[in-house]
Amino acid sequence: MSDADHAQRSTGKSASGKLAGGKNRIDFQTAPERYRHWKLSIDGDVATLAMDVDEKAGLFEGYDLKLNSYDLGVDIELADAIERLRFEYPQVHALVLCSAKPRVFSAGANIRMLAGASHAHKVNFCKFTNETRNGIEDLSANSGLKSICAINGTAAGGGYELALATDYIMLVDDGSASVSLPELPLLAVLPGTGGLTRVSDKRKVRRDLADVFCTTEEGVKGKRAVEWRLVDAVAPGSKFEDTIAACAKDFAAQSPRTAKGPGIKLAPLTRTFASDSIEYGTLSVEFARAERIATITLRGPIAPPPASAEAMMAQGAEFWLLKLARELDDAILHIRINELDVAAIVFKSAGEAAQVLAYDAFLDANRDHWLTREIRHLWKRVLKRVDLTSRSLVTLIEPGSCFAGTLAELTFASDRSYMLLGQREGDNKPPATIALSEANFGPYPMSHGLTRLGSRFLADPADLEQAKSERHKMLDAERAQKLGFRLVGGTPEQLGAHLKSEIDKWAKVAKAAGLAPK
Amino acid sequence: MSDADHAQRSTGKSASGKLAGGKNRIDFQTAPERYRHWKLSIDGDVATLAMDVDEKAGLFEGYDLKLNSYDLGVDIELADAIERLRFEYPQVHALVLCSAKPRVFSAGANIRMLAGASHAHKVNFCKFTNETRNGIEDLSANSGLKSICAINGTAAGGGYELALATDYIMLVDDGSASVSLPELPLLAVLPGTGGLTRVSDKRKVRRDLADVFCTTEEGVKGKRAVEWRLVDAVAPGSKFEDTIAACAKDFAAQSPRTAKGPGIKLAPLTRTFASDSIEYGTLSVEFARAERIATITLRGPIAPPPASAEAMMAQGAEFWLLKLARELDDAILHIRINELDVAAIVFKSAGEAAQVLAYDAFLDANRDHWLTREIRHLWKRVLKRVDLTSRSLVTLIEPGSCFAGTLAELTFASDRSYMLLGQREGDNKPPATIALSEANFGPYPMSHGLTRLGSRFLADPADLEQAKSERHKMLDAERAQKLGFRLVGGTPEQLGAHLKSEIDKWAKVAKAAGLAPK
Repeated sequence: MSDADHAQRSTGKSASGKLAGGKNRIDFQTAPERYRHWKLSIDGDVATLAMDVDEKAGLFEGYDLKLNSYDLGVDIELADAIERLRFEYPQVHALVLCSAKPRVFSAGANIRMLAGASHAHKVNFCKFTNETRNGIEDLSANSGLKSICAINGTAAGGGYELALATDYIMLVDDGSASVSLPELPLLAVLPGTGGLTRVSDKRKVRRDLADVFCTTEEGVKGKRAVEWRLVDAVAPGSKFEDTIAACAKDFAAQSPRTAKGPGIKLAPLTRTFASDSIEYGTLSVEFARAERIATITLRGPIAPPPASAEAMMAQGAEFWLLKLARELDDAILHIRINELDVAAIVFKSAGEAAQVLAYDAFLDANRDHWLTREIRHLWKRVLKRVDLTSRSLVTLIEPGSCFAGTLAELTFASDRSYMLLGQREGDNKPPATIALSEANFGPYPMSHGLTRLGSRFLADPADLEQAKSERHKMLDAERAQKLGFRLVGGTPEQLGAHLKSEIDKWAKVAKAAGLAPK
Repeated sequence: MSDADHAQRSTGKSASGKLAGGKNRIDFQTAPERYRHWKLSIDGDVATLAMDVDEKAGLFEGYDLKLNSYDLGVDIELADAIERLRFEYPQVHALVLCSAKPRVFSAGANIRMLAGASHAHKVNFCKFTNETRNGIEDLSANSGLKSICAINGTAAGGGYELALATDYIMLVDDGSASVSLPELPLLAVLPGTGGLTRVSDKRKVRRDLADVFCTTEEGVKGKRAVEWRLVDAVAPGSKFEDTIAACAKDFAAQSPRTAKGPGIKLAPLTRTFASDSIEYGTLSVEFARAERIATITLRGPIAPPPASAEAMMAQGAEFWLLKLARELDDAILHIRINELDVAAIVFKSAGEAAQVLAYDAFLDANRDHWLTREIRHLWKRVLKRVDLTSRSLVTLIEPGSCFAGTLAELTFASDRSYMLLGQREGDNKPPATIALSEANFGPYPMSHGLTRLGSRFLADPADLEQAKSERHKMLDAERAQKLGFRLVGGTPEQLGAHLKSEIDKWAKVAKAAGLAPK
């Protein structure tokens, strides 16, 4: 790690050159009216998302985003647009991904941006772009919104990888438009956003052809691209737009997504950034910088769940479980990319566990409503993001906490969960409990397809069944220990000392191995 | 890469300090009477393999192999012993792996050896030790020889990883013997020989406990090790040996391995090393060092297969398909570890394709014989070794070559297969052909469990069925192309020029990316 990286890390700022426009952090919040790189348009049941990267609007100084190449800022807008299709436009049943620039679809991740980026930024950039592409596939697999990629020219590297995340790739047959993964022959690196995997495992390209493809700088075009299964179809330029439109209509007609709209508005998050904290509506983040700890305290609902799906629709983005998911997602992304010195994230919660269970029961009772389905899928994606955040994750279960049902998933996602024994001095709250609901046994699978509890209890299905039989009960530390949900109990002082010694230990190990700033 | 590494690479010698005893290459051939680190003993249907590492007999100068720690030399003997159990002792139906040293099982890979080793050596060391452990599991899964690990003291890091490769781990309960994976807390590296994977996926240790385990330097002992599923049982020191012996008897009695012996002797390979070639009985290796190419030419059988399984037993290690597998394995291992400058391995063959098919048919006809089963499993492992050799693999199919059945797997394992069109000037051999047999459709799965053709034709099972229907036919270049078995045909000169330009291209790419010596 260079000295410059060290300096950047120690400020807690993003470690990839100087942010453009005098910004001091990367913001994951945006909205279509502020997009610089994409145009989202809706025509009946078909949405079109056109890539039109503003080359002067890079996230960092020092590079131009030529030829629809992208940086994290471009992908943040893409991810935002995909979320809005889910929540704001349930009537959309097919998506066309295309380029607004002539004869170029996308040149992929911007090479100059990558060359100037720190390792930490590149890792987080790749992670987020992968999550966005997984999100496009999730949109198809679980929300019935199939996507078509219209490649009107060069689709190289990350440009083709973006296409690979869609269900159907159409390539213009004009003698020059091509798809390629030139990372290996040009840069001697592997495609970082799922290219090889999707070529072989998703599109099932013959492995000998896949090998030739990803070692050939110029890529493959025309009919050969179809024969090799790299794209699904080609069409001449004169018929390209009509063919895409017909295909989109077809996909929309076949979609199992039946919602008619209107959706709900994803209003901007209300956040207050202070030097050592961020305040959201349903959670707060506190930074103990000397200890390298960020503590996220989630707040339970302040009111019972709405009386009906219609009432939930009326609450819209204010509906507690939706608001919390969006805010938690934003907080995690912020810590990942802007707070590189945070070594451990500690989850706490405060509220009525019974109310959390009531919200889970509400979602369950309305499980066929499009909005509850989308909220569940959002939680699934946010929890996967937590799983893959690459910081030490610790949950503290204390008197007054509400790690129940959906929120209890955070304790299972954590590397360590600690449960306080007994009560705090001068605090008359009853001892800490956790509780399970249906939400812990299905709707939030991890990346490998198993639930967190299914993964934990892989050795013996009976353990999983026993946990299931204890749904909706408040489980104290002893019972939780028996069921396999906590490792360490202790007084607040013991837990605090333990946590500090753990972080000191790992800081030393990382330093000795040259993995941390000196 | 340091200058010292460069110097070592350019000599074509192993890149990890100075070999002990004045040796100039690492030899993968050994035999029990020459073991320095293991004692193999056979008692009826139970074999015992006792680790007793000679600390002064390290492969390189500069370290002592204390506390049953190991280097590649120790693992070469272990791999040899496992092969001999398969072929020389078919009457053995259970294996006990133990330590001959008091109160220590194994301290794992020697840390000082690793600290002094080049990256290339470490990669190849980890690869080979992983293959050896996979081989122990293959012995259990496919040859019915279950293994028990008797841990009489400390089993740390690679020591515990070795235990994890067995079917049943017994730990002495003496208040101090423990299992541990201290790599992370001690060295900030991940266990390199399958430790994390086998803890979670094979032994299904609860993931929260697995996390604690592999971040705790001191490991876990006694009953807790059983409760956490890290070992299968504990026994007090006074009963330890009797318990192991009873367990081994039990495993042997339940084994599906029914062979009674005697086995066949794995005679030493006959090899002649010259400066730019190695001559084996059934193949030769030629090094074109300026071009960074090693060419392995496999020779077809010189006689038809034996008339019966008994006749095959009489041939023993001279049986062509067995001899070729052993020699190919040795050649590949030699290139991997001693010839670091070789960028591409080119496979050629010479012989009668019909005879190769006759050998495959012979194995098929005798598929229930223990020796044919072991030969098939050996080929399976050797081909996996080829798959994972991390050099560019090229097969040249020429007039007079015999890439049929088992040998045809090499063309499917290769990154590129080239088939000569037409005949060579002044050569009256008929044009090149390849041929398939049953051997291409089952007995040689890759690491992911699919056959090479199954993997190649993943997109459409009909392609696989069509290939299957063409078994036993000599397929010329045109037919092979149609079936999806070759990419490029050409004259010998064209192919030679193509190969040279490819190697030049990749040398430049690797150099530009800082991946190759300057």
